[in-house]
Formats: sequence, C-alpha cells, structure tokens
Amino acid sequence: MTSHDPVPEIPVTTAAGVCAAAGFTAAGVEAGFKKSGGADLALVVNTGPEFAAAAQFTSNRVAAAPVHWSREVVRQGTARAVVLNSGGANACTGPEGFQNAHATAELVAQGLDIGAGDVLVCSTGLIGEQLPMDVVRRGVPDAVAALAGGQAAGRAAAEAIMTTDTVPKQACVRAGGWSVGGMAKGAGMLAPGLATMLVVLTTDAVLAPDALDAALREACRVTFNRTDSDGCMSTNDTVVLMSSGASGRTPGQGEFTRALTAVCHSLAQQLITDAEGASHDIAITTVGAATETEAEDVSRTVARSNLLKTAVFGNDPNWGRVLSAVGTTQARFDPDRIDVTINGVTVCRNGCIGDPRENVDLAASRAVDIEIDLKTGEQRATVWTNDLTHDYVEENSAYSS
Amino acid sequence: MTSHDPVPEIPVTTAAGVCAAAGFTAAGVEAGFKKSGGADLALVVNTGPEFAAAAQFTSNRVAAAPVHWSREVVRQGTARAVVLNSGGANACTGPEGFQNAHATAELVAQGLDIGAGDVLVCSTGLIGEQLPMDVVRRGVPDAVAALAGGQAAGRAAAEAIMTTDTVPKQACVRAGGWSVGGMAKGAGMLAPGLATMLVVLTTDAVLAPDALDAALREACRVTFNRTDSDGCMSTNDTVVLMSSGASGRTPGQGEFTRALTAVCHSLAQQLITDAEGASHDIAITTVGAATETEAEDVSRTVARSNLLKTAVFGNDPNWGRVLSAVGTTQARFDPDRIDVTINGVTVCRNGCIGDPRENVDLAASRAVDIEIDLKTGEQRATVWTNDLTHDYVEENSAYSS
Repeated sequence: MTSHDPVPEIPVTTAAGVCAAAGFTAAGVEAGFKKSGGADLALVVNTGPEFAAAAQFTSNRVAAAPVHWSREVVRQGTARAVVLNSGGANACTGPEGFQNAHATAELVAQGLDIGAGDVLVCSTGLIGEQLPMDVVRRGVPDAVAALAGGQAAGRAAAEAIMTTDTVPKQACVRAGGWSVGGMAKGAGMLAPGLATMLVVLTTDAVLAPDALDAALREACRVTFNRTDSDGCMSTNDTVVLMSSGASGRTPGQGEFTRALTAVCHSLAQQLITDAEGASHDIAITTVGAATETEAEDVSRTVARSNLLKTAVFGNDPNWGRVLSAVGTTQARFDPDRIDVTINGVTVCRNGCIGDPRENVDLAASRAVDIEIDLKTGEQRATVWTNDLTHDYVEENSAYSS
Repeated sequence: MTSHDPVPEIPVTTAAGVCAAAGFTAAGVEAGFKKSGGADLALVVNTGPEFAAAAQFTSNRVAAAPVHWSREVVRQGTARAVVLNSGGANACTGPEGFQNAHATAELVAQGLDIGAGDVLVCSTGLIGEQLPMDVVRRGVPDAVAALAGGQAAGRAAAEAIMTTDTVPKQACVRAGGWSVGGMAKGAGMLAPGLATMLVVLTTDAVLAPDALDAALREACRVTFNRTDSDGCMSTNDTVVLMSSGASGRTPGQGEFTRALTAVCHSLAQQLITDAEGASHDIAITTVGAATETEAEDVSRTVARSNLLKTAVFGNDPNWGRVLSAVGTTQARFDPDRIDVTINGVTVCRNGCIGDPRENVDLAASRAVDIEIDLKTGEQRATVWTNDLTHDYVEENSAYSS
C-alpha cells in the first residue's frame, strides 16, 4: 500500500477468513463440479443471533441466474447462508438456470432448516452450460454435514471457490471486540473467462442492513471496483456481506467502513497478485484531478490500454502510451502540463520528455507505480491492474477448448 | 464485403493510389528518419486547377504537433500539398515540436513556391522525440525534386509512409470521367504504438470544400471509425482529402460519397488484413438494434474484449464472451432474446446455448463473421478488428526497446 493510497492503514491478517468473525460456520467439499477434481462447493452460514446482509452484484446486464436469485434474496436485508460452487457459472442458461439456482437454495435451506429465501447462491465457471443438479444434490448435504467454525473450516471454504486461483484468498481485521473477515476468488488476469470475482465478507458487529449496505458500497467503490485486470466484466461477480451480531458490539459507521475497506483492499490485492501469468502488478494513480470521478476515469482508461500493458511486460516505461490513453478521456487537463512518474522517475514533464527513461528499471521489481499529475485540481484515485503477457493470451485462448 | 455491409458495392482497384486522380503528383524518398533505413518521406501535391481540401483528425486530446498545424491549415477549406514522414511522431514535443511542424511546411512551401499555410503535415513513429530537422532539411528538397505523376510515383509515396506495415496500401475508384484515389498506412494491431493511421485521399472531381468535408465525414464514419484493432487511439491519426478539379466533372454528392466510401473501405480492410501477427480478421455486426449508434456501440464493445479476441486466436467460438461484452453496454435489448451467429452457425439462441459450437471451424478460415441480433429494432453496424495473439504481445512489448 503506497503512501498516496486512500485505503486506511489498518492491520490486516490473512490467516483467517469468513470464520474470523464469531457466529459463522463454513465448509468446503468436493462435490464433482470440476472435471479436474478438488473441492468445488463452499457453504458459509450465519448462526446469528442477527442476520443482516448486504450485497453488490455485477453491473453486467447479461447477469447469471444465481445473480438474479441472490439479488431477490438480499432485497429484504437479511440472509442466513451463502452457497458457492466453482466449475460452472450457470450464466446464459435461461429459465432452467434460474430454477437450478432456486433448487440449490432449497437444498441448502432443507439441510439448515431455514427458508430458501434466506440462502444466497454464487456460481463461477464456464458460461452457457446448465449446472449438473445431481452434483448439487449430492454435494449440498455433504457441505452441510461438514459445517464447522474456526480457521480450518474458513480455509476449506476459501479453497472450494478457487478456479484457476493458485492460492486461497482470506483476510480479517480484529477491532475492539468485533471482527470483519472475508474470502475471495478470482484469478486476476489469467483466466478472466471465469474471472468471476466472488467475495464473502462476515462480521460479528451489530449493524442494521442499511448500515451494512452503505459500508459495503463504499468499501467496494475504492477497492474491488478499482481492480481492473483486463476490462472484462463478469456475468457473475458478487460480493456478499453478512452480520451475525455475535459480538454484541456496534461500531461507528466510519470505524466499521474503514475496517471493511481494509479487508476488501487486502483481498483485492491478493487477486491482483495471484495473476501468475502477469509479471507486473501495476498501480495507476491519477492526482491533481478536478474530481475523484475524473481521476478514476483517467486511471481506469490507462489501466485498460493494451499498449501500455504490453510495454510494461517488456519493462518499457513508455510514457507516450500513458499520455495517448489519458488523451482519450473527458477529464479536465492541459496536455502541455501533464507529468507522468513511473516508479519515482518523472519520465514525462509538462507533456514532454522528462527525466531519462533509463533511470526506470522495471525489470527489477514486480510492482509498477504510475502516477499521472493532471495539475487541474486536488482529487486522486488509484486503479490496480496487471501487465499483458504471453501467458494471458495462452490461458485465455486455450481455456474452453 | 458481406451482404449485410452498408458499404457500397463499387469496384475498387488497388493498383493505383493518390495519383489515380488527375492533377496530383507524388514522391517517396529516403530522408533518414528511420534508423532501419528505407523510404520515409512522402509528398503529395495538388497541381490544380482547384485546391479544395478537407480532413479528419484524431479525437485524442493529446494530439501531435503536426495535427495541430494541419488543423489550422485545413480550416480555410484549401490545401496544395501534404508532406508525411515515418520514423518520428512529433507528438508530446511541446512548442519546439510545433515549430518543427511549421518549419517542415515552410520547407515544402519554398520548394513548391506556395505558402506554408497551404501545406498539411503528417508524422508517424515514436512519441516524445523531436523531429531531426537536419533530416527534414535534406529530405524535403529531394522529395520535391522527385515529384511525378503516375502509378510509380503514387506507389513510392505509399511505400514511404509505411512503418511496420508489410505492404503499401492503395485504392482507387474510377467513375464517369472522374476518379478517387488514396493511400494509407497503419499496421493494424501489430504495432499500434505507431499504429497511427495516415490516409491521403485525392480526387479530380470538382467539389467545394463543404461538399468534400461532408463526404469525408460520412465515409470515415462507416469505415475507418469502425476499424478498431486494439482500442488504442493514436495521437497522430489523420485523413486528408484533396480535390484538384482536373476532371472538370462535378458528381452528385451521394455519388461522390459512395465512391469515396468504397475507397476508404478498401484501405481500412487493407489495414486490418496487414496485421501479420493476427491470425483472424473479425467482422462484428450487430443487427436488430434500436439505433445505429447502439449497434455500433455493441459491435465496438465486443471488438474491444480481450477475452473474445484471445478466444478467436484459440479458434474457440466462445459466444459467452460475446454476451458478457454485450451486457456491459447501454444498448436496448432483452438478454434472453439475443442470438449470436459465428460464421453462419447460431451458437447462441435467445441468450442460451444454440447450435453446437463444434459446427464452427474457425481454424479453417482467416475471416470470422460474428453477428449479434438484439431483436430490438431495425438498425445495424459492423466494426472490424483482429484477434489478440502472441505476436501482438511480442511486437508491442519489444517495440521501443
């Protein structure tokens, strides 16, 4: 986390995940969705006493069946469980796909003796194939039977949602008597065909649904929503937050939002770092913007430039490609005043050549910090991405065959 | 050109270029801009009797010095010559860069005994370096001395503007007593770091500047503006149209626009086809859209999906990635009614799996036709692109080093 980062400096540990907060049990089992084998069904259950919940979903208008289902469930502001499968996205599957998402929730509800309307469903995998319901019927009871609290159970759940992820992603913050935990999956830029980002966040703080929702929106806005590995938005992206209230403590809204943001930031950074095909993690920070929205727009546009991303792969601090991308935005700036600084070297000053690009040694570090100073106002925003590599092309051209 | 193409079915030949129209001379010489050697300075001169001109420039707000210069020149609706160099973009070069563009125009003007304000300037190459003015001073008189009419001269000019292009691009249409010719450079997706698109179009038809301008806008709108190799917009893109009036004929506005569009379409297709690193040329046509703008937006969004472009490289007719991209647009559609047809096979029907993807053999053809039917209205638009390949990554990561 660099000094210009708006994310709060709160200690985050990655040893525990969704079970870090009191009042949650979890499980991860091998149901049989993945042809390659391995755990592929996760369950996270809120054991109460409170059941407040909030969620953020993909803004892709071609949304998967489980997204449609979960959107309805969370509308009431509560949820008791979330079931997640890897090995099949249940997207572009029509009415049958929606029925299958519903049936999955019913099976979980039967196992837990709750209502199906309290069960969120998440899926990730190949688009356009129906979920194998025999696998669901076999796997859900196994997952219910395996439910437990503690770090091992949380980790089992985090492992069961992995697709091309190489490591499970967990994070937690322990505050004064209450905690926030979470797990995530998403393979960064490596295989974004199924780079659905699924995140389950838990807390034992006592918070009303509205408070949870507001905190989740703000945390996502500056973390997951600014993580842009290849500009391709999934049909399945879901971030769920559940509160058990088991700590009996009610933190201030700002205090809770900061802790939640820290957990989300850690998970987002883990997603970026697990892009094994990528050779560089790139943080693009625009400063001196008239508004934060314009700063974010500039950073995101640069983050989506294939030309810049291939240049970074080639360890080339190519500021001309940064400026070319900036020039396509509608942000307010004077092209003759822009500075571009790459890993501390201002290679472009006032829109022209600056300090020698030879002073930047991109081959020496995985982290690449690009700062763009528009010199227009006071606002800033960072977007995180990866370089564009041969492995990206390889993984994504070979994926579904 | 497929049957759904809005581009007119007019015979286009590629044997002649800017000198196909009467009243134009051209030259291409080796001035010394390119470190690799070879012709790198082109000159096209309108010998009259008329001197009407129009131009379209990059909408990138970080525009190169020659773009700023030429924008001023063409504002008056006339121009007598255009000078083009490869081997240096003269972009992000500040006031000195603008002075160098101006000085280049002055040198051409001296050689032709005209005013500098009648000389358009185009540059292409690496961003952020000043033009070597000793090379300009040496090369411009050589180019003036080499000016000639006829196919050989036109071809020499077309060769001198090549960068990583492997072949010169020319096209012409001969109508009833008048002609339209043109040349283009741009390496498709292979090296878009300098994939500046420079196009010079000529005609001997008698047309006022306003008529030229209107025809050029319409022709560019449905050809060059829908050619999107990697979504990265250059700082130098320029399309120039000059009219000599030497034929003495004045075609109807529609007739002229159709001929000009046919020439532009041919040049745009040549740009796409010369992406030697690309293994597929992809035409993405959206039909059944509420408006042409929405159809174009959908086609362009799909054309910019790295996931789809890598899938096509892998010969994978991955309609899920098409739908994922469509879902990120604001076009009007019902996700459950969209059809996707790839090379004649409707692999997605009503948003779900359609005919077997095994029926599509992408390995067997370079051309990939993707048709997306939104079933909302009557409008359509095609955007042309390439697949995303290892060679794209290689060329663009190695380019400036």
